[in-house]
Parts: sequence; structure tokens; C-alpha cells
Amino acid sequence: MSGPSSRSILALAGGVGGAKLALGLAAVLSADQLTVAVNTADDFEHLGLYICPDLDTVMYTLGGLANPETGWGRRDETWNVMGALGQVGGETWFRLGDKDLATHLERTRRLRAGESLTSIIADLARRFGIAPAVVPMCDAPVRTMVKTDEGELAFQDWFVRLQCKPVVRAVRFAGIETARPHPALRSFDGLRGVVFCPSNPFVSVAPILAVPDVRVALQRAKVPRIAVTPIVGGQAIKGPAAKMLAELGHDVSALGVAKYYQRLVDGFMLDAQDAALKPEIEHLGLKVKVADTMMRDDQDKRRVAEAAIEFMDEIAADGRHS
Amino acid sequence: MSGPSSRSILALAGGVGGAKLALGLAAVLSADQLTVAVNTADDFEHLGLYICPDLDTVMYTLGGLANPETGWGRRDETWNVMGALGQVGGETWFRLGDKDLATHLERTRRLRAGESLTSIIADLARRFGIAPAVVPMCDAPVRTMVKTDEGELAFQDWFVRLQCKPVVRAVRFAGIETARPHPALRSFDGLRGVVFCPSNPFVSVAPILAVPDVRVALQRAKVPRIAVTPIVGGQAIKGPAAKMLAELGHDVSALGVAKYYQRLVDGFMLDAQDAALKPEIEHLGLKVKVADTMMRDDQDKRRVAEAAIEFMDEIAADGRHS
Repeated sequence: MSGPSSRSILALAGGVGGAKLALGLAAVLSADQLTVAVNTADDFEHLGLYICPDLDTVMYTLGGLANPETGWGRRDETWNVMGALGQVGGETWFRLGDKDLATHLERTRRLRAGESLTSIIADLARRFGIAPAVVPMCDAPVRTMVKTDEGELAFQDWFVRLQCKPVVRAVRFAGIETARPHPALRSFDGLRGVVFCPSNPFVSVAPILAVPDVRVALQRAKVPRIAVTPIVGGQAIKGPAAKMLAELGHDVSALGVAKYYQRLVDGFMLDAQDAALKPEIEHLGLKVKVADTMMRDDQDKRRVAEAAIEFMDEIAADGRHS
Repeated sequence: MSGPSSRSILALAGGVGGAKLALGLAAVLSADQLTVAVNTADDFEHLGLYICPDLDTVMYTLGGLANPETGWGRRDETWNVMGALGQVGGETWFRLGDKDLATHLERTRRLRAGESLTSIIADLARRFGIAPAVVPMCDAPVRTMVKTDEGELAFQDWFVRLQCKPVVRAVRFAGIETARPHPALRSFDGLRGVVFCPSNPFVSVAPILAVPDVRVALQRAKVPRIAVTPIVGGQAIKGPAAKMLAELGHDVSALGVAKYYQRLVDGFMLDAQDAALKPEIEHLGLKVKVADTMMRDDQDKRRVAEAAIEFMDEIAADGRHS
């Protein structure tokens, strides 16, 4: 597989929302025209296994292996290990299906043998039949820690075990200071564009931007940079983004997200339901494209991907990044 | 659960043959009358998991969870992790079922957290509803290494991956010098008897005897000590015992096993098919009991257990150990 071409698109993705747009982009672009850089700050060790929830959601989705009902995990999954684990007193709050467990076992074995996460993910993606490049934001372990009114919690404790209930006061990414960005995140020059997928701004996209040098490189990049809104009608399509916007003091709307990304993107893709916010977002200095951003089926994903590409090309044509 | 009573029987067991006799003994003795000490020298790390084949075979058998067809692993087992592991390029030569994997995951997690194997096995056995005590021969990791004409091999490499094909020249137990025996193996005084289960003498029973001080304590013990033959009609009931007898220069018969155990046991339980060997084994200075030792079903297991107990009691009544 060759590297990304100079006309390729870089997608910054977290879990389910990022995976959906990545699948749409993969459907309308050739393999060398797309790189998906994925958040790894929600990775964690559990049952002695190294688990990468966002990377796996992206890989399973791009490989056609994702569970369409949950958005996470694999389709046609069974839960026999979890059942037996409960019998022997093991922890079962983080549900790992049998097929999914094989990914974690093999990845953990290879990491312990000294292989880099980047190399392992490239091989897994190849085995899952994924054409575009899927890369972790970095190889070093980074851990999202959520400061809540019940103390600081590891992300998955807060997200899965406590179902996002404790009120969020702040988020930090432990270990990020010494992480080195994946080469795909070191320079953006020559790309057709960079798209922030409709993933959680605070715990999916922010960690990628927080890897040293990525934010500055992105701010300097002379390429179209857009975000696709993860908030529609004041609500997150999935997950705790709206709750976090509120608890972290932002507008609970697409406007709040646009403000959060203001200095990093040129354009903001707004859902048709929120068209009324267009003037306010334009007032931030951003281009705005209004579209139906909901991705219910594969046709939706292609449509949103095509709209995002069109938006980047329009921004480029406007001459700011020619 | 209280400790073994002074009238209890200690069974030294490896995998399938040991588990069968242990099940028979458990059926005819009360919980405090039986302790099963199990070989751990075939334990190994695989897929990052700590696997105890003999302990698990004994636990699954005593817990009514064993796969009746294979003798190892769990009944009603599924293989979905292994199937998916093959897809991601993982090693699948050592077959681990989904339910079985839960045991390995939880045991590995607890070992890494610093808990002793003895403590973990006691808890697992309780959760599996096992009444008698099941104990590992020691807590320290010991590894059977098989010196073959193709070089020295880790036991499971030779046993499973190479299907016992390389010719065996010697066997050693790496790490055994610093192991400390389980308390049940430190003193045998007051026991009703010690029975060497029909397990492989060289790789199942020998490691238990090789834990420092066990052999001497057993030689000095003033209790009836018997072995139940693992060889019938010159063949092993299961596994490579006959092949190893030949390659290590022993008689390929129950007589070869009796000679190997000669200084450690008072009595040898011979299969009816091999009754002709009785005079030669008696000539070694051992008592001999001839019985049908084949354990096809649960009734057989009880019958062989009852014969073994009767044999120990006869030896005690003879006055050598009163």
C-alpha cells in the first residue's frame, strides 16, 4: 500500500461518529486519497489486555465488521468469554465480545513483544481488508482523565462504568507531553483538506490536537480545514458531547462546538436543523455549509462525505489555500 | 472449607488420568478426606495468558465442567475467539475455547496483581463448586523442558505443537530448585494414604516429586503410598507415557513404571490385563493389587477409587505404617 497522495484528505476521528464519516469518505475516495487519524486517548488496559476503543470502532466500521446496533464491537458477535468470566468472578462491566477479544489478545501480545501500535494497526487494518490508511494519533500511551465532582476518573470508568453521570469539571490527557505525533499529523501541506469528524470535541478530537506540535502544524497549514458538527438540534448524535459542552461552560449547540474549533478550522458544516446558527458561526470568521449531516445508512454517509469534500474544495477555490 | 482431616487421602495428579481418579475419589470420600495436588510444570504463558493445563483439567473434571470428548477444556465450549484470532494472524495451535479463556484471563489478571496461584486456584475451585481441596504443587513457576533429538523444547511446544514427535532424551523442570512445595506436600504423616494417579510418570508425577523436599518427605512418610498404573497392556491410556518410557530407556510396561516409582511407593495397582507382571513387581519389594483400572465412565472411576483406597487400607493393616 502506498502512502497518501498529495491530494488526499486527512480525517481526525474518534469512535462511532468518526467511523461513520470515515466510511463515507472511504466509499467516495480511492485508497490513497484518505488517511484516518484516530484518537487513542481512550485506550486502556483491562483484563490485562490493551484495548483501543476508537481505533477498533473505526477499523471494524471500515472493514464492514462493525455491529450495526451498538456502533461499537463486531457484528455477529458472541459473549461466551464474558459469561464465563462472570462465573469466575472477573470484571464484566466493560463488555468485550468473543471476536473482539481476539483483536485485543493479538494486539496486546504484539505490543508486549515490542511492536509499535502504528505497525500493529496497519497490519490489522490490512487483515480486515481496509483500503485507506488508519493510523493512531501516536504510539505512546495517552490516557484521558476526567476531573469530575466525584474526583478524577479514568475515561472508561467515567464513560462506561459510571455511564458519564459524574459532572465534568475538566479533561486532561495524561502522558501526552512526551507523545510524538504519527507522521500523518506532522505536516498537512499539500493535502486536499483536513476534516474534523463529528466526534466528541473534548475526548475524541481534542486529544489528537493535543499531541505535541499537531495544533501548531494545523494552525499553520495552508489547506482547507473543516469540522462536521457533532451536535444537531442542541443534542449529541451519540455520547456525552452535549453534556460535556454544558458542564465545561460552552454553548450546548453547534455554535459552542464552532467556537471551540474557531482557530483551527476554516469551515464548519452545520446541520440543516441548525441553519439559524449560520450567521453567528460566520461571525466567528468561519465559512459555513448547511447540509443534512445525519448518517443513518451508508447512502447518508456517502452524501455527508461528498458534502464535506465539496466544502473543502470550495474553501480551496476561494483562494485562501490555493 | 476446613483443611484436610488426618484421615484424608492425598492424590498426586497430572491431567486427564489424574483428573479421572480424582473424580472417583471425590465421589467416594467426603470433602475433608481428599486433597488433590496437581502438577504445574506444564503451565505456560501463551497469548499473554497464564495457562495451567493440568490444574484446569482437574478443576473442570471435579466441577463437572470438563469436555467429555477431549478430556481437556470445558464442555459445551465454543471457539469464537480462536476463529477471530486466526483472522488477525494470531497463534491458534494451542486451542483455547471461549469459556476456558475466561479462566485464563481472570487467573492471569490476579497473578499480575500479586495473588498467589494457590489462593487463586482455591477461589476458582470454590466458584466451580468443587468440594475437595485442589492445590498446585507450588506457587513458583516451574517449566518442563524436554530435551529431544531436535533440541530442547518447552513442554507444550513438544506436546501440542509438535504432537510429541521429537524423540525424548531427557526431561528437566526449569525453576524447580527455588520452588517451595505447597503445605499439603510438606508432611504426609497422619494421612490415610498417598496415591500417585495414573498420570504420566515423567511429566505429571515427576515434577511434583521434584519440588524440593517432597521426595524425601514422601520416602520417610509412614503412610501407605500407592501408584495406579498409567500403562495398560504396554500402552498409555492417553498421552505419550509409553513413548517416553521407550525413549528414556525403561520397560514399556507397567513394570517399567513400577521400577521408576520403586523407592517411593509401597504398592502398585496393576491392570487385570497385565496380571502376568505381578510376580516381577512384587520382586521389586512392592505390594501389588490387580484390578480393572480402566476408567471409561463415572462408575469405573468410583470403582478404581474404591480399589485404591482399599489397597492403601490393606497396606496400613499389614502393619508397615500403623
